[in-house]
Amino acid sequence: MRRLASFLMLFSFAAFALEPPADEPLRGYSAEHSAVEVQWEQKFRAIPDRERIREDMQRMSARPHHVGSPYDKDNAEWLMAQLKSYGLDAKIEQFEALFPTPRSRKLELLGPAPFTAKLEEPTVAVDPTSGQKSEQLPTYNAYSRDGDVTAPLVYVNYGAPSDYEQLAAMGVSVKGAIVIARYGETWRGIKPKLAAQHGAVGCIIYSDPKDDGYANGDPYPDGPMRPPEGVQRGSVMDMPVYPGDPQTPGVGAKPGVKLIPLDQVQTITKIPVLPISYADAQPFLLALGGQTVPDNWRGGLPITYKTGPSKAMAHLAVAFNWDRKPLYDVVATISGSSFPDQWVIRGNHHDAWVNGAEDPLSGTSLELEEARAWGELLKQGWKPQRTIIYCFWDGEEPALLGSTEWAEYHADELRQHAVAYFNSDGNTRGLFRASGSHSLENFVNSVAKDIQDPETKMSIWKRARLASMLHATPEMRAETRTRADSRIGALGSGSDYTVFIDHLGVPSVDLAFGGEDEGSGQYHSIYDDFYFYTHFQDTTFVYERALAQTAGTMVMRMADADVIPYQFTDEADTVQNYVTEVKKLADTMRTEIKNRDADITEGVYAAAADPKKVSVPPAVEAIPKYFNFAPLDQASDDLTAAAAEYERAFAAHDASGETAVNDELLKTQRALTDPAGLPNRPWFENMVYAPGFYTGYGVKTLPAVREAIEQKQWAIVDAEIARTAAAIEREVEVLNAATKILSGN
Amino acid sequence: MRRLASFLMLFSFAAFALEPPADEPLRGYSAEHSAVEVQWEQKFRAIPDRERIREDMQRMSARPHHVGSPYDKDNAEWLMAQLKSYGLDAKIEQFEALFPTPRSRKLELLGPAPFTAKLEEPTVAVDPTSGQKSEQLPTYNAYSRDGDVTAPLVYVNYGAPSDYEQLAAMGVSVKGAIVIARYGETWRGIKPKLAAQHGAVGCIIYSDPKDDGYANGDPYPDGPMRPPEGVQRGSVMDMPVYPGDPQTPGVGAKPGVKLIPLDQVQTITKIPVLPISYADAQPFLLALGGQTVPDNWRGGLPITYKTGPSKAMAHLAVAFNWDRKPLYDVVATISGSSFPDQWVIRGNHHDAWVNGAEDPLSGTSLELEEARAWGELLKQGWKPQRTIIYCFWDGEEPALLGSTEWAEYHADELRQHAVAYFNSDGNTRGLFRASGSHSLENFVNSVAKDIQDPETKMSIWKRARLASMLHATPEMRAETRTRADSRIGALGSGSDYTVFIDHLGVPSVDLAFGGEDEGSGQYHSIYDDFYFYTHFQDTTFVYERALAQTAGTMVMRMADADVIPYQFTDEADTVQNYVTEVKKLADTMRTEIKNRDADITEGVYAAAADPKKVSVPPAVEAIPKYFNFAPLDQASDDLTAAAAEYERAFAAHDASGETAVNDELLKTQRALTDPAGLPNRPWFENMVYAPGFYTGYGVKTLPAVREAIEQKQWAIVDAEIARTAAAIEREVEVLNAATKILSGN
Repeated sequence: MRRLASFLMLFSFAAFALEPPADEPLRGYSAEHSAVEVQWEQKFRAIPDRERIREDMQRMSARPHHVGSPYDKDNAEWLMAQLKSYGLDAKIEQFEALFPTPRSRKLELLGPAPFTAKLEEPTVAVDPTSGQKSEQLPTYNAYSRDGDVTAPLVYVNYGAPSDYEQLAAMGVSVKGAIVIARYGETWRGIKPKLAAQHGAVGCIIYSDPKDDGYANGDPYPDGPMRPPEGVQRGSVMDMPVYPGDPQTPGVGAKPGVKLIPLDQVQTITKIPVLPISYADAQPFLLALGGQTVPDNWRGGLPITYKTGPSKAMAHLAVAFNWDRKPLYDVVATISGSSFPDQWVIRGNHHDAWVNGAEDPLSGTSLELEEARAWGELLKQGWKPQRTIIYCFWDGEEPALLGSTEWAEYHADELRQHAVAYFNSDGNTRGLFRASGSHSLENFVNSVAKDIQDPETKMSIWKRARLASMLHATPEMRAETRTRADSRIGALGSGSDYTVFIDHLGVPSVDLAFGGEDEGSGQYHSIYDDFYFYTHFQDTTFVYERALAQTAGTMVMRMADADVIPYQFTDEADTVQNYVTEVKKLADTMRTEIKNRDADITEGVYAAAADPKKVSVPPAVEAIPKYFNFAPLDQASDDLTAAAAEYERAFAAHDASGETAVNDELLKTQRALTDPAGLPNRPWFENMVYAPGFYTGYGVKTLPAVREAIEQKQWAIVDAEIARTAAAIEREVEVLNAATKILSGN
Repeated sequence: MRRLASFLMLFSFAAFALEPPADEPLRGYSAEHSAVEVQWEQKFRAIPDRERIREDMQRMSARPHHVGSPYDKDNAEWLMAQLKSYGLDAKIEQFEALFPTPRSRKLELLGPAPFTAKLEEPTVAVDPTSGQKSEQLPTYNAYSRDGDVTAPLVYVNYGAPSDYEQLAAMGVSVKGAIVIARYGETWRGIKPKLAAQHGAVGCIIYSDPKDDGYANGDPYPDGPMRPPEGVQRGSVMDMPVYPGDPQTPGVGAKPGVKLIPLDQVQTITKIPVLPISYADAQPFLLALGGQTVPDNWRGGLPITYKTGPSKAMAHLAVAFNWDRKPLYDVVATISGSSFPDQWVIRGNHHDAWVNGAEDPLSGTSLELEEARAWGELLKQGWKPQRTIIYCFWDGEEPALLGSTEWAEYHADELRQHAVAYFNSDGNTRGLFRASGSHSLENFVNSVAKDIQDPETKMSIWKRARLASMLHATPEMRAETRTRADSRIGALGSGSDYTVFIDHLGVPSVDLAFGGEDEGSGQYHSIYDDFYFYTHFQDTTFVYERALAQTAGTMVMRMADADVIPYQFTDEADTVQNYVTEVKKLADTMRTEIKNRDADITEGVYAAAADPKKVSVPPAVEAIPKYFNFAPLDQASDDLTAAAAEYERAFAAHDASGETAVNDELLKTQRALTDPAGLPNRPWFENMVYAPGFYTGYGVKTLPAVREAIEQKQWAIVDAEIARTAAAIEREVEVLNAATKILSGN
């Protein structure tokens, strides 16, 4: 499902000319144990095989395998059989969830130049699976409500909050209209959500050729870009409120669980939604009247983009089968020899929108190859100290269903036992990218230094760090030359880590390579298949192997360590940056409001207006008061001090003997959760990381504070500062307890 | 001809909530004289008549009137007759110049999908003059050399210096190729110049719909944007070396003047050039192979833009009649009553590429209306103290021919007598924009405060100042609230002021309204005609009247003053900013080279490269030494001090009695010229203002220094700093002499 994610959560690896000496023992290991571990890791990395990954991808992508389809179940059973054949203890854990599929779809333009949208992706002759019509899910957006509306059209660009401000300034309202938005910028579910909030009655989302079509390269099958009739399917559920089964928030949906009635579900869209291709979109866009759009609203079609409204009416009618479908999560467990109650979890989903070679099978196949390696190494005598759990999730595409229901079902155990969750999803060629919890930043760096980049033969750590220099600001360059660890991004949403980090406070990392074959246009279409992947993506599967090596090394190193190798000075440094950011955000917004108010009063808008064009000046706004950031400043300083103390105690003597500290360490990230959750969305409990309420995938750090400011909910800012600070102070307390154990006090 | 100019030389009027009290006497006037002047100015501003301007535009645009055409001469004679009918002393001053016109033009794509470019703008039914085929100049670029070449194509984006760097980084060479460049960014003459420098054998320039076609609004005749077959004609002469007749640089080309042989002319292109429409361009662009271009290289056609080279060959063949044609400059003179040897000059060209309603007749017509007003006022007893010269230039479009030859012919007189030159060219609706010599900045501000904006009814000064606040940086906002005068831009080239300011050092200002109907696509096409202007530009002619009021008030106020109202503290402040800029430029370039060198050495480029794409890392470059900016710092400080001294002396007593100071004031801007001229282009003598050698229209201030740095001619930087500083010190000396006169020392 992830996509926007891979851009926003870019691993901002900064460069350093020389890699530091690698002969220190691994963190959390004694020198002796470290030497043994390094050998096991090397053995592991020799195992993943490109041809096997290729074959696994081909097998699993042979037919469409969305939730509830025969081949989805078939893949799950095949995965379980494979895992068992490797000698692992594998099972299918079955859940169920609401998963609507189309009963009827109609979109037409009425008026003088009538047109009926095809809503159909044609078979491509050279592509053998593109013609599996009987099993393909039609093009649609899951969790759109049923609806039948006839209304004029308005173009809303990406349908982001700023786009509605622009429309208001141009005097255009979407009230009573069907909006037509292009894919991109915001997560797709935000588009109908905001459209409905502004009074629209329907929403069409199309793929503009500027964003992933011919503007970026040759269209499929000549090149990797979206062809004229290619359509992006996808969920439009209001996942920033809660992901997972809409009828069982917070509860693992085993068959028979109590359900919220459909008409009370909060996360289904308020208006009907339908995705279309740019071939289908062009006649609708041509029907728009009104003003010519601003530069940055223009797409790549050979037309004059206008805001609308259209004179001609559009008719949008969609109806769905509102069925509950089974979910088959495949789970394999390797019990820990020393700390069986400390769990290292690894996951990637196996369901797809259609054949899904890139999304998700490029990730699923390499995860399976890691599992095969564990089978081999167990036979050779390797014994992980911690329990390792390998998960192959079902139902990620509709709404992170399989991972969410599983983790909600096992919530109490996970809160007690989960050490870390390592996620992957679709994978391509290029630079190493990691995003996640910053207590794992140092750990991610340590592993990345040991993985070879297939193209340059330098480490993936060094390559990413060097490449980040190319367009770095002077500030970034300076930091790069002084900070030992490269920074990792923060996690928003868009893949299965969401329930772990955001709901349960389990330290999580999302891993991928990317940047070289990205932005391609088969995302969520019938053409994301084996032919596509093997012609236009990681065609030699070298980055598939590299990601297996990377993720697997992380799992092994985390599972084998004596002391969990969390590190907190990187985290404290990052939190301090976030605090600086939200303080600056408040100041910037206050200054902007002040200036705009002054401009309105002085007549700036009247002076700048062209009387031939409609323009509506903004209204004068109350200037927000100053906020009390003291608790956050204090908490950030306290975390910095506690992290440094822990680091000193950790370095002072061989920590590897002090395994009692692990119990405290397990609590450090859980401390960041607040059971009351974020304002208006209690399911999201993490006070440091969350997907944005109006970005969907894009992360908001210190979300309660940041979004209160962004959304101008001035009245709650001080309280959310205090609540966020309290969460950080809880981590400080746990961390101080850990330090005490290490220091023997 | 001007166009890019109107964007680059934006009048960066900053806002100020309140206009200062207007009851002070006009600068250079006694209180009593000022009161009288204000009355004459008010009388003047009541005269310009929208209907007359409309009729004059209709008359002059009735037929094509390029240099050498029957209607060009007809317009000149009609203009002279009109001026005489107003009671003015008018004559035609005839010159001649080389003006090539097409003998044959051919452009075809060879290979498997052959295509022959139409090279023809079709008649538009609703547009009555668009069908005057027999008199229209074909679509071509003047001063392209003859040539017949067959070669593969390479796309070079705008064909700017940075575009060639990008191509080099992608491993693409234009050696032996025909380049296809889009119009925009650089002045068109730069495109073949740079292409030839990089080894190309031909150059095609096309109008991309992203730049002035359907991307920006409905195409003509439904809207103002360029239709698929519309073509931009225009000169490609190497005017940054020298403008005017290519065969008589520096000499006024009266019939019989000695000519440089054609084959020794430096300013004719080195390779053949042809402009085409986007309908003609599309097949050529589709033939390109190679890599997909970067984002900012993409145009608006529904294709994948690639760099090339093309497999198919293109064939370009052009041949011209290399004739010398007569130029008819129409000049009317009103002798000054007190200071007949101090000349105030006003100009606008009358020749066009075809019918030229907007360019230039929107300016020509309003200038004519000013002249009519002078006739009226002279009858009412108005007597300007200085001589006023009204010029209607011929041959501006090919190469500023009429103004350059006239001013070169009268060079000695102008150096002695010229007080100021006020230019206009095409004019549309919107904000007031002025660019020019900064000794006139305060004067321009003073007049702009007295002109009413037709749309908002506030002064044009206040409107521009307020509107500039809308997207101002914090620095700009702060300055706006503290600096009394709004800043005016500096002049590059693109219209008839060039010879005055750049060759002779005559203080010059270029005037226009714009921003509301700009960026339209009929520029230099057959569709820039009366139908177009009256449907899509200043359709009610209110800004035509407003510009007549503005320019006329400037002429009158300058001609009637006792002491020439130059002011030097604004100029000193501006020069100081320029000095800061060039120092910063040197530092920035040094840092960039240092960083790039480090990146190359450390392997940044190797790390960032995608092996599936060709990429060529840059070569290590020598780091430039530090330069001696002391002379410029000193000169700038000296000018600041001298300007302040002059201002104190001026304010200390009624300066209006001290008319002896005028002789010194006349020399202040002439002092900025150096007879040796700029490096490699001695015709350009002004050491503060010049068009860029690689921008064509865009200005380079302190050009000898700035371009030496930009072009990495490190060895000459110190000498050019000294030479530029010396010019400024010469002005300081003159200014100190003026102050002495005022102080009675």
